[in-house]
Amino acid sequence: NLAVSLALMGKKVSILDQDFDGASIPKMLGIEGKRLTIGDDGIIPIEGPYGIQVISMGSILKSEEVLTWYHVMRRGATEEFLSHVAYGERDYLLIDLPPGTSSDSMNIMQFIPKLDGAIVITIPSSVSQNVAKKAGLLCNKAKVKVFGVIENMSGFICPHCGKKSNILSSGGGIKLAKELNVPFLGRIPLDARLSRLTDKGKPFAGAFPKGAASIALKRIAANLDRELNSKNYLSRGESI
Amino acid sequence: NLAVSLALMGKKVSILDQDFDGASIPKMLGIEGKRLTIGDDGIIPIEGPYGIQVISMGSILKSEEVLTWYHVMRRGATEEFLSHVAYGERDYLLIDLPPGTSSDSMNIMQFIPKLDGAIVITIPSSVSQNVAKKAGLLCNKAKVKVFGVIENMSGFICPHCGKKSNILSSGGGIKLAKELNVPFLGRIPLDARLSRLTDKGKPFAGAFPKGAASIALKRIAANLDRELNSKNYLSRGESI
Repeated sequence: NLAVSLALMGKKVSILDQDFDGASIPKMLGIEGKRLTIGDDGIIPIEGPYGIQVISMGSILKSEEVLTWYHVMRRGATEEFLSHVAYGERDYLLIDLPPGTSSDSMNIMQFIPKLDGAIVITIPSSVSQNVAKKAGLLCNKAKVKVFGVIENMSGFICPHCGKKSNILSSGGGIKLAKELNVPFLGRIPLDARLSRLTDKGKPFAGAFPKGAASIALKRIAANLDRELNSKNYLSRGESI
Repeated sequence: NLAVSLALMGKKVSILDQDFDGASIPKMLGIEGKRLTIGDDGIIPIEGPYGIQVISMGSILKSEEVLTWYHVMRRGATEEFLSHVAYGERDYLLIDLPPGTSSDSMNIMQFIPKLDGAIVITIPSSVSQNVAKKAGLLCNKAKVKVFGVIENMSGFICPHCGKKSNILSSGGGIKLAKELNVPFLGRIPLDARLSRLTDKGKPFAGAFPKGAASIALKRIAANLDRELNSKNYLSRGESI
């Protein structure tokens, strides 16, 4: 959904789904079943909605296929996905990492030493916060800038009575941001429509631009884009 | 919470937290900060509430420490946790695996070829169901019996108006059970008290035995215990 928010701002966005064991981006973007192909310049990413390009293990494996790879093969796949893909000129390459401190995350940080930065996502509960904190600390260790923390699944407004319940506790995101000494980027509230649409492969941020979750994402995307286009970043002379 | 339900039935339960990158069992059982020690018979598990023994990476790493291990070290840790721990005589060893088809899950299946079985846990949404399905297929590939599917975070009753919302969609658990051709074990509903208590290290199943989530867990635990103690299993002459 963050990718969609960026795309709606007119950005050219690619997503690398680095969560090999839980590759769900294709399903979430409604391009399940499409298969990666190889062209003259390497692997051709799948074109999803809003012009978003996707590279995912989910577009290689069949629905009944299971990945039983160990370290070297996983690392090799990451290398392929980074170096042999015809991404073309893009504004953003968002990399979806598995939770916590997976070696698939470490591989990314080693292959791209000049990563612009990382966003740490947690749910409000402090159990999840602890896991997300480790991901943040891993970034520190790898000297990858952490842009900030997003609190996902944050509070639920009952559609029947309009009252709010903090089903998964509250406050974990802000607390984590303080602990990691990075900005708190915002809350994405729970919304039954979001899950329903995602299951249908329709990103919420595009379908309900006025929904609280979409507004939160839009703000996060705009702040991110502003920061990345500030002098500070451009002076590094990088392009993805 | 399933461990607590089994413990409340009078069973001696040990938990091996095999989710190295998101080790959260110690926090959930209120034994965060306690450290694993070594005795004459090997590593001494930490004793948690209801007599539950815990072995977890979370009881080795300090809160600021991050695991940056690759395959061989992770496999080595799993081997240690399985072979050099003084579990003693126990009724159950529950192993908490990371989501999807992680190599840490494969290591377990290779080290314990006679695993009694596995439980696949999904949330209702079909995106999660797809990931959980891969875990189920991994069990099939490793010839590990799948006892069935549990649907977690299944529906929310608003505490203000009493009406139900299927925040994370509905039906994914039953559908997945059908696809994997295994029994559907039950639904654990969302409950704000559950998350709040878990954050405090107090298992819901013990604190609110009459809560819908606890009743569902109790039923699952009883069925599991009945199945494992049936002739079918005992004839295999195994003990954990």
